[in-house]
Amino acid sequence: MHCSPLDASAPAPLRVGLLGIGVVGSGVQRLLARNHALIAQRAGRTIELRRVAARHVARARELVGAHTTVVGDAMAVATDPDIDVVVEVIGGCTVARELVLAAIAHGKHVVTANKALLALHGEEIFAAAERRGVVVAFEGAVAVSIPIVKALREGLAANEVTWLAGVVNGTSNFVLTQMRERGVSFGVALAEAQRLGYAEADPGLDVDGGDSAHKLALLASLAFGTPLAFDAIEVTGIRALSLVELVAAERLGFRVKLLASARRHGAKLDMRVEPALVPTASLMAGVNGSLNGIVVHGDASGPTTYCGAGAGSLETASAVVADLIELARAVQAPVHGRAPALGVARAQAKALPRMASQALVSPHYLRVSLPMDDVLRLLAVGNLSMAAHADLGDDGVALITQSAPRSAIREVIGLLEREAGIRAPVVWLPVESLR
Amino acid sequence: MHCSPLDASAPAPLRVGLLGIGVVGSGVQRLLARNHALIAQRAGRTIELRRVAARHVARARELVGAHTTVVGDAMAVATDPDIDVVVEVIGGCTVARELVLAAIAHGKHVVTANKALLALHGEEIFAAAERRGVVVAFEGAVAVSIPIVKALREGLAANEVTWLAGVVNGTSNFVLTQMRERGVSFGVALAEAQRLGYAEADPGLDVDGGDSAHKLALLASLAFGTPLAFDAIEVTGIRALSLVELVAAERLGFRVKLLASARRHGAKLDMRVEPALVPTASLMAGVNGSLNGIVVHGDASGPTTYCGAGAGSLETASAVVADLIELARAVQAPVHGRAPALGVARAQAKALPRMASQALVSPHYLRVSLPMDDVLRLLAVGNLSMAAHADLGDDGVALITQSAPRSAIREVIGLLEREAGIRAPVVWLPVESLR
Repeated sequence: MHCSPLDASAPAPLRVGLLGIGVVGSGVQRLLARNHALIAQRAGRTIELRRVAARHVARARELVGAHTTVVGDAMAVATDPDIDVVVEVIGGCTVARELVLAAIAHGKHVVTANKALLALHGEEIFAAAERRGVVVAFEGAVAVSIPIVKALREGLAANEVTWLAGVVNGTSNFVLTQMRERGVSFGVALAEAQRLGYAEADPGLDVDGGDSAHKLALLASLAFGTPLAFDAIEVTGIRALSLVELVAAERLGFRVKLLASARRHGAKLDMRVEPALVPTASLMAGVNGSLNGIVVHGDASGPTTYCGAGAGSLETASAVVADLIELARAVQAPVHGRAPALGVARAQAKALPRMASQALVSPHYLRVSLPMDDVLRLLAVGNLSMAAHADLGDDGVALITQSAPRSAIREVIGLLEREAGIRAPVVWLPVESLR
Repeated sequence: MHCSPLDASAPAPLRVGLLGIGVVGSGVQRLLARNHALIAQRAGRTIELRRVAARHVARARELVGAHTTVVGDAMAVATDPDIDVVVEVIGGCTVARELVLAAIAHGKHVVTANKALLALHGEEIFAAAERRGVVVAFEGAVAVSIPIVKALREGLAANEVTWLAGVVNGTSNFVLTQMRERGVSFGVALAEAQRLGYAEADPGLDVDGGDSAHKLALLASLAFGTPLAFDAIEVTGIRALSLVELVAAERLGFRVKLLASARRHGAKLDMRVEPALVPTASLMAGVNGSLNGIVVHGDASGPTTYCGAGAGSLETASAVVADLIELARAVQAPVHGRAPALGVARAQAKALPRMASQALVSPHYLRVSLPMDDVLRLLAVGNLSMAAHADLGDDGVALITQSAPRSAIREVIGLLEREAGIRAPVVWLPVESLR
């Protein structure tokens, strides 16, 4: 119904080679087929899936139909002279890196949803693309259904970004939501997530924060115009979180999220992934289940928030195909580095030195198995005061402090833990006010 | 610090003429000055404010400094041969329309934040721009700080949009939030909003829904690739809303918002602005105060939500300058119509017939001053059943029905109002499940 037959003078189709046809790849194939006419109309020309590289060739042939050639050799697709754009959705870093670099060397644009690849090898890949004059697009690599790369690179381009914070791993967010809503432990919630397909058999990359850190490296590079700096991110996952903290946080007006955040402090940059308390009234507290949400604070825009699916076959395809449409429109948003990352040429992108985490100032959550009088006395010794508290009975007292540097809270925790009569180690979590 | 001196081979600056230097115009001037070097780096060339048309010339001269010429004659700026882009932030429709058409006729790109102008005269303006081959950009016209135009036109371009719904008027959202949080009437909340500068002396355009409808016309045209159809929008404002409804809705698990929504029903389109109940657990319920929020449902992406400031000087400037950067990058996102509105050429844009509102199916909120037994009996006569209810004492009973067409609910309201003993007219509001 959106279709109008293209005449002889119609522009040439954009010829796509797809590397991998698993969950994401099959979504890309399905979406290109289902919305073919609509996509052609919006792109100004047809987008044709010409070649697919698949591990199971026969099965893939059934899926893609007669107009697409399926082969087992991914390198043959990556370097095929009849392909304009290579979509890399194989995942992993070793083979994917070789394929992407080969495609670039052969003058092809690359669209990828592979955050690990870009977080770890992005500098090499973007530099190669810059030299060859091709685009590496990656809207699907972060918070898939949300066009956050475009928002940072274009929508907020007039702003100096002050900070950003996000829930960018759907699996750990699902686990935390289950724990809170059903009152179960981390282990029980994780098993449920695995049963429902929200978590993999080896959930480490998700619940230990690595996946969030991959995405944060990309977001921070875009937002601050800095080179990718995955290794500068401090990462703490959610395995050690007790349900007690989730319940106590709610009583105090906060919700615990695995938060990926980056913030400029003058000429320094702080990047971290860690469980943190956010105000229950904040939009971020409403990002539950497997949703992703990101808030970006620009110096002119103020805070803007983006939420949507963080995973899924068609959801990721939505982002991958948007990148293809942009390439087809020949709106060649310059490659990450050539002018972009918010438009800053790679050569101009300067690393910002890392902010020492002990200097970070925020309110803090503490849970202490001491009588409240003792807690207050020791907080006062450390020049800290309390903003709110809740009595948890056998679990001790939970409290929110006024803002203080992490170094100060560390000292007070030392005081508390040396106090006679303390029954368990002090539990500490930072509070992120999202301001 | 972001600055690097531009050498002789640097690309020519983008020369901007600004029409109007009120709240938005002064924000644009301030942002271009404050982030000048950063913007030049991202845009690939400098963006220079060359001419300003102001009502109070002397006052404007003090504001803009020596490098910008200030004149009183806006038409002279709109047609100045030394200007590449005209930024129209005068507001209103009559003069603004003439100026924008003159700028286009003189081959200039136009950036505007004037939603009323585009909602009412957009077809004429976009057609003129298409003929002249220039761009009319309007990111600042809808939910200013949120890059929603880009999200619809590019980020979600692979999707068939199923529906969208948003809180797009900060003033009425502020009034509703005040009513609910402080337990005051519409009149008291409005007076407070006026005192604080959130509402104008004549608040009609905001609280009666007209401003929301202007924005909805633009959003729907972008999302569905249809011509602008402001007159097809059914509009109801919030003046008649009683605090009783806001309180009862909360008890039933809902929050009342002035919702602008557009939804495809097969080949028909429904567009409306009206107070509606949304689930308290939805992200939209968290869009409070003067914030704006929009949720867009794509067939591949699923729902994605965007929130941010809906008004403000620098907040609007953030969007206006983003459009300028895009023009400077010569990423000339094709003019609304030439290829865009999600890329659909204006000639191809087909109006969708309007969906009859009586055929719309949703749950409904009713408040009835009858005993519950009578209410249930009459609902049953109309084949309606109840999903939840709350006893409000003297204010009657409030209830949520199961899904039913508006025609059916209308009949039941007729039955209820003919019942002996009813003490007040039935209050009805639709429930928008955002699914």
